[in-house]
Amino acid sequence: MFSVTVRDHMMIAHSLRGAAFGPAQRLHGATYVVDATFRRAELDENDVVVDIARATDAVRDVLSELDYRNLDDEPALAGTNTTTEVLARLIADRLADRIRAGALGDAARGLDGLLVTLHESHLASAAYERGL
Amino acid sequence: MFSVTVRDHMMIAHSLRGAAFGPAQRLHGATYVVDATFRRAELDENDVVVDIARATDAVRDVLSELDYRNLDDEPALAGTNTTTEVLARLIADRLADRIRAGALGDAARGLDGLLVTLHESHLASAAYERGL
Amino acid sequence: MFSVTVRDHMMIAHSLRGAAFGPAQRLHGATYVVDATFRRAELDENDVVVDIARATDAVRDVLSELDYRNLDDEPALAGTNTTTEVLARLIADRLADRIRAGALGDAARGLDGLLVTLHESHLASAAYERGL
Amino acid sequence: MFSVTVRDHMMIAHSLRGAAFGPAQRLHGATYVVDATFRRAELDENDVVVDIARATDAVRDVLSELDYRNLDDEPALAGTNTTTEVLARLIADRLADRIRAGALGDAARGLDGLLVTLHESHLASAAYERGL
Amino acid sequence: MFSVTVRDHMMIAHSLRGAAFGPAQRLHGATYVVDATFRRAELDENDVVVDIARATDAVRDVLSELDYRNLDDEPALAGTNTTTEVLARLIADRLADRIRAGALGDAARGLDGLLVTLHESHLASAAYERGL
Amino acid sequence: MFSVTVRDHMMIAHSLRGAAFGPAQRLHGATYVVDATFRRAELDENDVVVDIARATDAVRDVLSELDYRNLDDEPALAGTNTTTEVLARLIADRLADRIRAGALGDAARGLDGLLVTLHESHLASAAYERGL
Repeated sequence: MFSVTVRDHMMIAHSLRGAAFGPAQRLHGATYVVDATFRRAELDENDVVVDIARATDAVRDVLSELDYRNLDDEPALAGTNTTTEVLARLIADRLADRIRAGALGDAARGLDGLLVTLHESHLASAAYERGL
Repeated sequence: MFSVTVRDHMMIAHSLRGAAFGPAQRLHGATYVVDATFRRAELDENDVVVDIARATDAVRDVLSELDYRNLDDEPALAGTNTTTEVLARLIADRLADRIRAGALGDAARGLDGLLVTLHESHLASAAYERGL
Repeated sequence: MFSVTVRDHMMIAHSLRGAAFGPAQRLHGATYVVDATFRRAELDENDVVVDIARATDAVRDVLSELDYRNLDDEPALAGTNTTTEVLARLIADRLADRIRAGALGDAARGLDGLLVTLHESHLASAAYERGL
Repeated sequence: MFSVTVRDHMMIAHSLRGAAFGPAQRLHGATYVVDATFRRAELDENDVVVDIARATDAVRDVLSELDYRNLDDEPALAGTNTTTEVLARLIADRLADRIRAGALGDAARGLDGLLVTLHESHLASAAYERGL
Repeated sequence: MFSVTVRDHMMIAHSLRGAAFGPAQRLHGATYVVDATFRRAELDENDVVVDIARATDAVRDVLSELDYRNLDDEPALAGTNTTTEVLARLIADRLADRIRAGALGDAARGLDGLLVTLHESHLASAAYERGL
Repeated sequence: MFSVTVRDHMMIAHSLRGAAFGPAQRLHGATYVVDATFRRAELDENDVVVDIARATDAVRDVLSELDYRNLDDEPALAGTNTTTEVLARLIADRLADRIRAGALGDAARGLDGLLVTLHESHLASAAYERGL
């Protein structure tokens, strides 16, 4: 099994719902350093997992919908508790949509899976892994 | 599959048994930077893998039994060759015990697996992965 | 010249004022991984630059005044453009106040300088350095 | 499941074939920071996954065949498009050969799998995983 | 004193001249992860050291003259031994030229100094520091 | 001003003397990831700060006198409180001795200064800087 990982980041404000979150129930923020990993059993005709320039652009495109925003005010996220785990799944699912839609090229339709990891500090990260 | 990883560390003295360890047969020491990864197929009712504050406390609790000690003199480790691999398993097993005992909350009983990685330098690490 | 550096972090929301900030004029957020460096020409009577436990506590104390907050709503920051540079100076100045007040112990009054670095992502950081 | 990871690096020149590579079709170069991960269900008689000194030597031995070279001129790579993915597989396969040949010791024949990750910058990496 | 650091990278081929370089006399390559640090005694009217977007663009602009190239074939580098140290100075000097020419904005003419660090692997880096 | 930094590490046991050290008064241990920085106003005749292979060997040579040892039992350290700061100075001073003795080559006698940084965990480091 092969994989390729590209890194980008986003800087958002949000608050979390639930007494378990303690002070994170207040409006605060985070830099999420995002690692998107693309997996594939066999390489494509260019001997790569995915065109890395297109993968990088797709990740940027997905993150730009969230970057420099207060997630509490985003209509698309109304009713969503934007934990790191939930954001990891959201980003993975939106990347999967773009892959299916051909935004990463025809060859990328042969990808087998995705792993999205959000590093929220030097001490903590969350990840979501899914098939394609 | 979701996961959450938290980082902590411990600073221990020990020696290793077996000619293969060369100079590490002498009493020496290590800082182990420990990444504990908690895995779960579905998020809990707070939309997280685990209450990260409780997970962090549990990791600290487990490490505090080893931290700032000479492992060669720990009664609980008598007869144990405390390689990085063995310590990774020990920490994972003790975390699993705490999860089962409810120390990370009721919801944490729904966790599916654990991965514990010990970084012993910028060049080497060992890990142990288990189900729950 | 000796130095000791300790790392902590904070997660804040804020917005920046000035057309040059582009999308960062919107309410967004950041994780700042904070490195506080304490400098001293000669070691103290314990052969250290500073009691690292007290230094770590002082950094946490200063950061806890900002952590998990929307800096746009903090009365103490009213009228302040909370750029990374400004926050680095604010944290350094507040640490200097605590050092002078004896919060890091009598020996810490012999410190010569401070450097505070805020890493806002894997790509950018800002720092402020001052004497004591 | 246990694993041990060791890190080394190589510095090579090469060019890539295919319009998708854009400017990387020109002769350029890369530092690949290489993480080789050895996996094993049960520890060997020394309570380790693999003799880490031998594993480190084997990784160095494999990398030294590529290090400080222009891969476009290597006879053994004639006709190979030396993408990061292809190099990850090449290194993993050559490590597997050495394991089978006994270069890491008899006990290493009990290893279950290998993962080789090549970090080409702070933003991108590729990996190849295989059984043994 | 304030500073701001931005990170980018370049991937080049080259060879070094001199018996002391051993195998690095052969054509090989490197990823240089480049940290450009801008220093200033007082913040500008936007409360920053430098417009970080413009600084990032200027670093990219300077690196793009070297990126994805064989430095042995660059006319501008004919007769230059492109050690990491020499490249650090070259990049710093070219950034200084752009600052003087106003490419980072009028306010950037108030910068006091530059530090350029090139990380060539996880084990080695070189840096060059200069006034402005 | 130019600099070159090389990284190595050592794994030692020790205990610290003084009530301020709390649990670190017990015999414990540390991995110190060591960055040795060599500084020089002008490059030598090979266009480098120092022959990096020789610098790397000298750092290894100095660290090998401490590595895999219990520092409490080292005759050369009798009566020394082996704090991270003291070890940083010790390593810097021993490197300076080797430079003066010609172990890094004649050109290295033109070095202007040294900075030795010991990272004891992902959270703390100490450094010592001196002239030559």
